[in-house]
Amino acid sequence: MFRNHTCGEIRASHINREVVLSGWVQKVRDKGFVVWVDLRDRYGITQLVFDEERSSKQLLEEAKALGREFVIQAHGTVIERSSKNPNIPTGEIEILVSKLQILNKALVPPFTIENETDGGEDIRMKYRYLDIRRNPVKDSLIFRHKVTIEVRNYLSDLGFIEVETPYLIKSTPEGARDFVVPSRMNEGQFYALPQSPQTFKQLLMVGGMDKYFQIVKCFRDEDLRADRQPEFTQIDCEMAFVEQEDILVVFEGLTRHLLKEINGVEIGSFPRMTFDDAMTKYGNDKPDIRFGMEFGELNAVAQHKDFNVFNSAELVVGIAVPGGNSYTRKEIDKLTDWVKRPQVGALGMVYCRCNEDGSFKSSVDKFYDQDDLAKWAAATGAKAGDLICVLSGATNKVRAQLSALRMELAERLGLRNPKEFAPLWVVDFPLLELDEETGHYHAMHHPFTSPKPGQLELLDSNPGNVKANAYDLVLNGNEIGGGSIRIHDKETQATMFKHLGFTEEEAKAQFGFLMDAFQYGAPPHGGLAFGLDRLVAILGGQETIRDFIAFPKNNRGRDVMIDAPAPIDEEQLKELNLKLNTQ
Amino acid sequence: MFRNHTCGEIRASHINREVVLSGWVQKVRDKGFVVWVDLRDRYGITQLVFDEERSSKQLLEEAKALGREFVIQAHGTVIERSSKNPNIPTGEIEILVSKLQILNKALVPPFTIENETDGGEDIRMKYRYLDIRRNPVKDSLIFRHKVTIEVRNYLSDLGFIEVETPYLIKSTPEGARDFVVPSRMNEGQFYALPQSPQTFKQLLMVGGMDKYFQIVKCFRDEDLRADRQPEFTQIDCEMAFVEQEDILVVFEGLTRHLLKEINGVEIGSFPRMTFDDAMTKYGNDKPDIRFGMEFGELNAVAQHKDFNVFNSAELVVGIAVPGGNSYTRKEIDKLTDWVKRPQVGALGMVYCRCNEDGSFKSSVDKFYDQDDLAKWAAATGAKAGDLICVLSGATNKVRAQLSALRMELAERLGLRNPKEFAPLWVVDFPLLELDEETGHYHAMHHPFTSPKPGQLELLDSNPGNVKANAYDLVLNGNEIGGGSIRIHDKETQATMFKHLGFTEEEAKAQFGFLMDAFQYGAPPHGGLAFGLDRLVAILGGQETIRDFIAFPKNNRGRDVMIDAPAPIDEEQLKELNLKLNTQ
Repeated sequence: MFRNHTCGEIRASHINREVVLSGWVQKVRDKGFVVWVDLRDRYGITQLVFDEERSSKQLLEEAKALGREFVIQAHGTVIERSSKNPNIPTGEIEILVSKLQILNKALVPPFTIENETDGGEDIRMKYRYLDIRRNPVKDSLIFRHKVTIEVRNYLSDLGFIEVETPYLIKSTPEGARDFVVPSRMNEGQFYALPQSPQTFKQLLMVGGMDKYFQIVKCFRDEDLRADRQPEFTQIDCEMAFVEQEDILVVFEGLTRHLLKEINGVEIGSFPRMTFDDAMTKYGNDKPDIRFGMEFGELNAVAQHKDFNVFNSAELVVGIAVPGGNSYTRKEIDKLTDWVKRPQVGALGMVYCRCNEDGSFKSSVDKFYDQDDLAKWAAATGAKAGDLICVLSGATNKVRAQLSALRMELAERLGLRNPKEFAPLWVVDFPLLELDEETGHYHAMHHPFTSPKPGQLELLDSNPGNVKANAYDLVLNGNEIGGGSIRIHDKETQATMFKHLGFTEEEAKAQFGFLMDAFQYGAPPHGGLAFGLDRLVAILGGQETIRDFIAFPKNNRGRDVMIDAPAPIDEEQLKELNLKLNTQ
Repeated sequence: MFRNHTCGEIRASHINREVVLSGWVQKVRDKGFVVWVDLRDRYGITQLVFDEERSSKQLLEEAKALGREFVIQAHGTVIERSSKNPNIPTGEIEILVSKLQILNKALVPPFTIENETDGGEDIRMKYRYLDIRRNPVKDSLIFRHKVTIEVRNYLSDLGFIEVETPYLIKSTPEGARDFVVPSRMNEGQFYALPQSPQTFKQLLMVGGMDKYFQIVKCFRDEDLRADRQPEFTQIDCEMAFVEQEDILVVFEGLTRHLLKEINGVEIGSFPRMTFDDAMTKYGNDKPDIRFGMEFGELNAVAQHKDFNVFNSAELVVGIAVPGGNSYTRKEIDKLTDWVKRPQVGALGMVYCRCNEDGSFKSSVDKFYDQDDLAKWAAATGAKAGDLICVLSGATNKVRAQLSALRMELAERLGLRNPKEFAPLWVVDFPLLELDEETGHYHAMHHPFTSPKPGQLELLDSNPGNVKANAYDLVLNGNEIGGGSIRIHDKETQATMFKHLGFTEEEAKAQFGFLMDAFQYGAPPHGGLAFGLDRLVAILGGQETIRDFIAFPKNNRGRDVMIDAPAPIDEEQLKELNLKLNTQ
């Protein structure tokens, strides 16, 4: 037996008990005649004590020789601490050690194993097994586990069945790039790793399994942006015999349950907003509604004067920055520089101070009088003491730019409180999205999304205007889930593929099995998928997903700890019937 | 709203209620003036009724036009059935339909959607989405879900944390063949899909996450034997600061919990048997102990006469077949033919009838007298009325042959009752196994298994005799789990690799990260993994795992439904820097 207690559970009520603990040496304080050792395990820290009076000389020497992160076992008696530590649960006691055994020595760790570490990202990733000993990472992984257990039990209690779908599937040219897996037994052929179990969950609906979910790894071979991983985890869900409303009710219930059980936050009905409204009011399909700063469109009140920048713009739009009139000229100039950074891409920014006396002072006073500016204030909801920031240009671009500015200012103003949760359904997404580079439309959600009833005909005449029963669940400005009602008949699906540029042969080769399945009695169905990594990070009040993933990859897709990917043997390649192109 | 009730829940207490149901048409019985439709969903079958008296003419015609597997919605009133069906829970009622809507038509399915189907394996796999509508498959998938929910909650309640380990890892030449995944971003390099999360779970132990589990897909690119899948699911577990006994207690508890909650069977302490005993008594390291027929070694009582076949054999060993004396000569000859099949490989079989009068009649009466045969009976535990079957030859081979015969006979005698559960721990496995072809030793479990304390030295002098703290959990003659105490120090691990034929460089390149980790304070640890597919099949009383996997692959590793694997685009290959060897 290595231990009969953990390092997190011994209290004053245990005083005089004989205990056995095992763990890691967090710290050794050697005062010569007395040595204190902080012993750490997953559950906490317990102080061990050795002293000249009560410990043998040999034992005291052994304690002095301990190094950081040594793994030890200690037998001893629980005693009251002379100077109590109210900051830790075990702070009233310490263990007078009678026997000490080193279970494993340790080299000095390359960074300190403490909440705040001196290790940089790279070194922490290389020694991730040490990083995981640190509370912030360890607690994040335990937090993730708690969330998944809650999700599974909640859905299971509602009659959802977790079904494992295959990982070795077929590559589809549509969407993001697949990771592929050469098949040795089927020469020249490849499996693909799933980007999502989309078609399989739809086939489960055809199979009558009317409430499905799965917490499942998905894979995308994309050039990695910050905080993206080539493998990520989805809570994947699908239901049959449902309309959009049924789905929203179930997964709003799940999200509300998590917020309550995990965060102790009670939230009522989630507000809903159309995609069009979200774009108009926030310039973004995943608005953070924890704070206001809604967009005010100014075309009507800013395009009647001689200011050509505005007159030539498709959209003139502003936001009111609460208390922003206190910004100095220099601060405002910096803000202007910020929106002109290539990542944001604005050409400039017009501002208008709302003075306490009700007057206005703008950067374009040459063109606009007080009456004009008062209308700007009305349109943006600006009050005395605020600052109005105005951008102009092509609608889509300027909305994205002002949205970025809004988020940046909210961050600076401390309006994005990670302990506050503001969920939002964004609904009525467009079915198709125009790729401005190629001029082609592609599926905004995916090619299995159903157009709204009666809108199929619009596909020919006005494809950009077709709306879908597609929805996203947004939490604090992050898309945490998204889904749609699916197409469930062969003809509509064939029409969709045609409009997405598939030839009949391509559609059949790639998705023939799904269209075949639709002919054998496919029920109406729809679903949703949550991004688990992001969801747990937000519930955990964090911006980055990395600490919620045990062994993340870097932005070159490398696992620097195990040093993967790596070359493989010539023999392996040969068995797979492959050659490197360089050979 | 598509339904307000399922097809499995309406009872006599609902009579006169208005209900809305959706589902599949299981059957239409058209008697001209009355039409009954069995409507099916995941939850059951409800009978719909249409008749001349109470239904409009048009509605009656609509009902007559319904085909098998049409998806329909029916509004109607719950009424009492005139002729009740006591075989189904909804048998007391039917629905007098007021409104019928076809949600989707269906082609005639290629096989009948009933418990006993007329569809062969191939056609059922091609249309797996239809196969899943059948109760045996649907119920197996739901059963699997129930098992996994129980496993997760049981382990979570004990403080185990489910941690997701990566799927894109590094290929290792050791063990079975890896599936590999070419990396686009790291030219000429490959990820591998995990054969198990072995090293990662050990790193989690080094990371202090002292109770880990994960229900996780694993991958092996092996030539597929019957009832093996290239992707399979493990319940993967690991604990730190534990000895073998701690691990056995926890996972015996889990298995006992499952048997109770899932099967309603209460089982006491699981018996334990050493590997050596299992081989001696049953010729097999996963004995089915639901029945006796233990091996009786006969060397001492069969090698003293002139029968050269026995005298020249390393082992002479027999089993008593209960009631086997009733076999005719022809039946016994067939048994002899059975053991001589290439799959079993015996050269012949000696038998001895145990007559009711206490006398014996053997196929080798020329060599052995009644006293000799009485000793055979004593050694095999044969009673009057039994048949003794005796095989001889090289120890390992003959044990395997007699074990196969024992299982075959038990099957024929109905001794393998799928509702009876007999778990067994097999312990004290050898560390190494001799590959008789190459003459090299390889790890019986895996190279991370620790030799028993004090036996490391034997590695040089007598490698085959080194025992490990390795154990298997056997249920009804199937290995459902296996694990070991691991090596946790760098030196021992390096020694193991050396004995397994790794050069120092190879060991470092493949497992350097693990040996490095062991230097930074690795705790003693060990674990176990259950094969989930097999476990649920056995708990479900089935021999084959296939119905417990939603979308299994065939024995060429193909998914015949989606037709994967498949060729990929030239463009994709080029991006991956690969060429087919045939190009």
